[in-house]
Amino acid sequence: MTGTAKDVTVKDAANPTLPEVMDTVGHNKVSVNMVWTLITGFLVMFMQAGFAAVETGFCRAKNAAHTMSMNFMVYPLGMFAYWVCGFALQMGGLGAMATLGGNTVLDSEFTINLFGHSMGLFGMKGFFLTGTTYDVGVFALFLFQMVFMDTAVTIPTGAMAERWKWASFCVFGLFMGAFVDPIFANWVWGAGWLSALGTNFHLGHGHVDFAGSSVVHMVGGVAALAGAIVLGPRIGKFTKSGEPVAIPGHHLPMAIIGTFILAFGWFGFNPGSTLAGTDLRISVVATNTMMAGTAGALVAMIIVWMKFGKPDPGMMVNGMLAGLVAITAPCAFVNSPGAVIIGAVAGVLVVFGVFFIEGTLKVDDPVGAIAVHGINGAWGVLSVGLLELEMIVDDDQVDQIVGVILKTARTGTPGDGHVSISPIEHRYDVLSGHRETC
Amino acid sequence: MTGTAKDVTVKDAANPTLPEVMDTVGHNKVSVNMVWTLITGFLVMFMQAGFAAVETGFCRAKNAAHTMSMNFMVYPLGMFAYWVCGFALQMGGLGAMATLGGNTVLDSEFTINLFGHSMGLFGMKGFFLTGTTYDVGVFALFLFQMVFMDTAVTIPTGAMAERWKWASFCVFGLFMGAFVDPIFANWVWGAGWLSALGTNFHLGHGHVDFAGSSVVHMVGGVAALAGAIVLGPRIGKFTKSGEPVAIPGHHLPMAIIGTFILAFGWFGFNPGSTLAGTDLRISVVATNTMMAGTAGALVAMIIVWMKFGKPDPGMMVNGMLAGLVAITAPCAFVNSPGAVIIGAVAGVLVVFGVFFIEGTLKVDDPVGAIAVHGINGAWGVLSVGLLELEMIVDDDQVDQIVGVILKTARTGTPGDGHVSISPIEHRYDVLSGHRETC
Amino acid sequence: MTGTAKDVTVKDAANPTLPEVMDTVGHNKVSVNMVWTLITGFLVMFMQAGFAAVETGFCRAKNAAHTMSMNFMVYPLGMFAYWVCGFALQMGGLGAMATLGGNTVLDSEFTINLFGHSMGLFGMKGFFLTGTTYDVGVFALFLFQMVFMDTAVTIPTGAMAERWKWASFCVFGLFMGAFVDPIFANWVWGAGWLSALGTNFHLGHGHVDFAGSSVVHMVGGVAALAGAIVLGPRIGKFTKSGEPVAIPGHHLPMAIIGTFILAFGWFGFNPGSTLAGTDLRISVVATNTMMAGTAGALVAMIIVWMKFGKPDPGMMVNGMLAGLVAITAPCAFVNSPGAVIIGAVAGVLVVFGVFFIEGTLKVDDPVGAIAVHGINGAWGVLSVGLLELEMIVDDDQVDQIVGVILKTARTGTPGDGHVSISPIEHRYDVLSGHRETC
Repeated sequence: MTGTAKDVTVKDAANPTLPEVMDTVGHNKVSVNMVWTLITGFLVMFMQAGFAAVETGFCRAKNAAHTMSMNFMVYPLGMFAYWVCGFALQMGGLGAMATLGGNTVLDSEFTINLFGHSMGLFGMKGFFLTGTTYDVGVFALFLFQMVFMDTAVTIPTGAMAERWKWASFCVFGLFMGAFVDPIFANWVWGAGWLSALGTNFHLGHGHVDFAGSSVVHMVGGVAALAGAIVLGPRIGKFTKSGEPVAIPGHHLPMAIIGTFILAFGWFGFNPGSTLAGTDLRISVVATNTMMAGTAGALVAMIIVWMKFGKPDPGMMVNGMLAGLVAITAPCAFVNSPGAVIIGAVAGVLVVFGVFFIEGTLKVDDPVGAIAVHGINGAWGVLSVGLLELEMIVDDDQVDQIVGVILKTARTGTPGDGHVSISPIEHRYDVLSGHRETC
Repeated sequence: MTGTAKDVTVKDAANPTLPEVMDTVGHNKVSVNMVWTLITGFLVMFMQAGFAAVETGFCRAKNAAHTMSMNFMVYPLGMFAYWVCGFALQMGGLGAMATLGGNTVLDSEFTINLFGHSMGLFGMKGFFLTGTTYDVGVFALFLFQMVFMDTAVTIPTGAMAERWKWASFCVFGLFMGAFVDPIFANWVWGAGWLSALGTNFHLGHGHVDFAGSSVVHMVGGVAALAGAIVLGPRIGKFTKSGEPVAIPGHHLPMAIIGTFILAFGWFGFNPGSTLAGTDLRISVVATNTMMAGTAGALVAMIIVWMKFGKPDPGMMVNGMLAGLVAITAPCAFVNSPGAVIIGAVAGVLVVFGVFFIEGTLKVDDPVGAIAVHGINGAWGVLSVGLLELEMIVDDDQVDQIVGVILKTARTGTPGDGHVSISPIEHRYDVLSGHRETC
Repeated sequence: MTGTAKDVTVKDAANPTLPEVMDTVGHNKVSVNMVWTLITGFLVMFMQAGFAAVETGFCRAKNAAHTMSMNFMVYPLGMFAYWVCGFALQMGGLGAMATLGGNTVLDSEFTINLFGHSMGLFGMKGFFLTGTTYDVGVFALFLFQMVFMDTAVTIPTGAMAERWKWASFCVFGLFMGAFVDPIFANWVWGAGWLSALGTNFHLGHGHVDFAGSSVVHMVGGVAALAGAIVLGPRIGKFTKSGEPVAIPGHHLPMAIIGTFILAFGWFGFNPGSTLAGTDLRISVVATNTMMAGTAGALVAMIIVWMKFGKPDPGMMVNGMLAGLVAITAPCAFVNSPGAVIIGAVAGVLVVFGVFFIEGTLKVDDPVGAIAVHGINGAWGVLSVGLLELEMIVDDDQVDQIVGVILKTARTGTPGDGHVSISPIEHRYDVLSGHRETC
């Protein structure tokens, strides 16, 4: 028999004490959380390969090496910038990392006072991961948040593919990784002001985004839109009268393999966002994630089939990705039919979004990144509040929208009746030291 | 020190009680099982990318986009059908999910009475994953079983590549995911009649298939054979006199990358079938799995080398896959030389199987799916009974064959002398509430 | 609520005893270690796909099928040889596998007596994984060590790509997997003489290599150098006057996807080398690993950009791989700036290494394997001793170099002040039965 009482460290094996055993029990718990956080983080990192393959497959052969090289270097560029200062700005004021041992070393947030409330703007601890942040919990958090941030940085490379200068791209990668994504993430997931709207102004639970529909995808999509407008369309994309011309991708199999890699990595992205393998909602999050992707792919296939007489592989791919993006915010708060509905709507949105961006806005987005990540990132956060699929659990009916991103989560937790409090607070248990997992 | 007694939730930290601590211990145990089941499930999902790459690499360039698109859409099609009713038909009467918390909500099996015995035909709980099946354990089970089922659905796309109509393919995907695979899986892994043959009619342990040589691969292979016969061969595959003509694949590197992805995913497929990271047999299952694949690849290479004067990469690939398919049923019940023998036989079978299907049956199977999955799926289940490699452990000598799928498992458990009872009953502990793991 | 006290197996649920509960606690602990070891092992196995894609992408189109086929078969060839005798020679005298249950069945090392000290040369237990080595702990160790070894075997296929005969390649694969890598690994990681230099001759901590900069990469790189010299350059690689001619690879996207797969797999390679998910240093190891790869890629890009006026994707790729190779030995012993420095130096070394090997040594290495794995493998082990980034912790100042591989690790452990003793002894706790993890 392998794995028994003798694997528990005690001073006197004949007279073990409960406190001694509890040390191993607590260590096991943190270890399960650590293993889960790291492995799901690895899966998220692998999404870089998925983005690279999707974007390269959808661009023209002559630009394949350039597109692929951008997708490669965005990973080290973003990571380096995040290590220098991005992580510190994002997470420096987080407070206790409840699931990863409770260390409170990330304790420094820059705040201003507004309307009598303290509002966090950015963190100030963890530059270069040195000093007291040389800690196993902080390093795990860094790894997971870094791969998240790098996803946001890589999204615009698709919309700007085939026409971006290398030096500009490098500056962009460093800037996104150092400032843009970290500061918005601080507001929502760190100790920042958006996450505290509920507490400070009684606006429901504040801005709620479980795994990053807004923080990662909408930010990436908006940057993609801005970039694509600035760069202008590829030569030949629009006729003189402004009609868009289809420029087919050169390697559909590469794009589809890339989509599978992304769907695989999303099993890290969403369920991993618990930062806890002992939070058993991970199975609900994972299943909701794949069902939404499925619904998106099916609906996008059917719409195109009905509209144009035959299904289009590119739209199937974008339909699945759109469903995955949309479910990213609400994945932990909706039941299974809710996930399917959210994904199905995403499948509709992405098809019409691509036509709108190309035909109406006259913006050239070779891979559909703006429709997939921007539009469906927004839809995802909105859906958290709109879809009250299970039950209404509290009486604070104050729902207001700050931009598109402020809504209340009101659904219950799977498997038992208790009510999730603000999931973001639940996620990191900011400053409270509370260690409960569902 | 990170991870200590303070990570264990108790009411009074100064006076912890054993029952309180046990709550965390039990939760840790279920969490390890959950984490294992989900991560291995993710690996199985990734096999979709492997199948897509192998099948596309082995088809002609002109059909690459079509083959790849089928391989892509089979995933959402099968998943949607499985969510609507497949899962309920398969697992609705399973009973307690012992390793995932013991929830007994899957309690409804449709049975008939025959010869005085109750025989299960299909389950009736879990349609759309709603109601009481909105549970963390059920969702984990759904995810793992869904990706299994989708593997069976994707196998025939290889045999029917380059000539399948899109609409027919869609109907096929939905039908397989909703009915065919789930109902057979209910009989073997749910509460169905095949798994109960041992108990009801003293036929050894009933039908034994640890991770799906029959349920997934043979079912997929048989569907592939039927489909390939119905569709008929590709134009030019056979001469007027009926001689097969080699139609080489267009992208060997893609096929080989795909094979590596499949071998990687098989580490989820087989060891994950314990549904328990605390069942330490997982290391034996994983090692047996890779050794059988290795033996299959080596033997297939050598046979072709001896027979035709040079080794053939396509046959190396199919040899490895054949070994992996064959070990899928017996992986938890044989020792290491046993795994190598099973894989080596698979390597022989796949080479002659391909020639037999093409040369004798005159069936056109562009990727060898029938030989790999059909023939070696059958060999795998048979091997469970044939290879009594370690010891004979009980005296019920009743071995009978129902089709090719009914045999007795008679080998011991690694690491200690105790005897595995019917591994399928062990696997889910149907209705017994017994929670022991090895 | 899923996962509670009722999931803990006790005789009398009303009167649980501490020793009973400890059985589950100990089993949970070993299970977490087992799950971690297996999953990281799976990731390392997947690196085979990465090597295959990188090497094939960097070779010419006409040799793509040959290069890919070699990369495929090296996996079963090496694995089979390792199963027959490699594992036994490497690990047969290891002693207790502390993190995997403490089984001491690997107890037989062939030793000689020299200068009054017993020095281990190779192990003698575990051939064909039979007998008492049919154990869950041994099988997990086999799987993890096998995929490590197979990495070393696959490295030379890159340097000898496009000109290696199939039969010679098969003999090479078997020989490396059976003898070369296992015996050197025995000396460093088994019970062999290099690991005992510290104890026997007071040479610091003996040879220290956490995850295989020397055992895997330098061995692979040296074999690659030897092989490339023996085979001679490809026709047309050098002009008559000896000037090297660039022979560009045929598929950069394939090479970059392969690099992402390798970087993904390295998250198994380095952090998995703890063989313990309960050793929380895994987060530090993982983060250091990715930071070193990042630094390597950035520095290599910048040097080439400054030197030749534009960045080169091939060198970015090799820069990241060089950083990953270099950090493999010191990953558990340096802090984050240390990892970045090690990776940055690797980025410098690989650029000039490629020019040196090609321009000065006149050796043709199509993929840069010698510079990446050989030179940076050596740099990695040296860096363990050179970079005393955190603190100097003991007073044995005896540093000597045996080859390039003997140095002392002197840095602390993250998160608390205690000092790591010889990390290799820590890793397996050879023969001591000590089970502490950090």
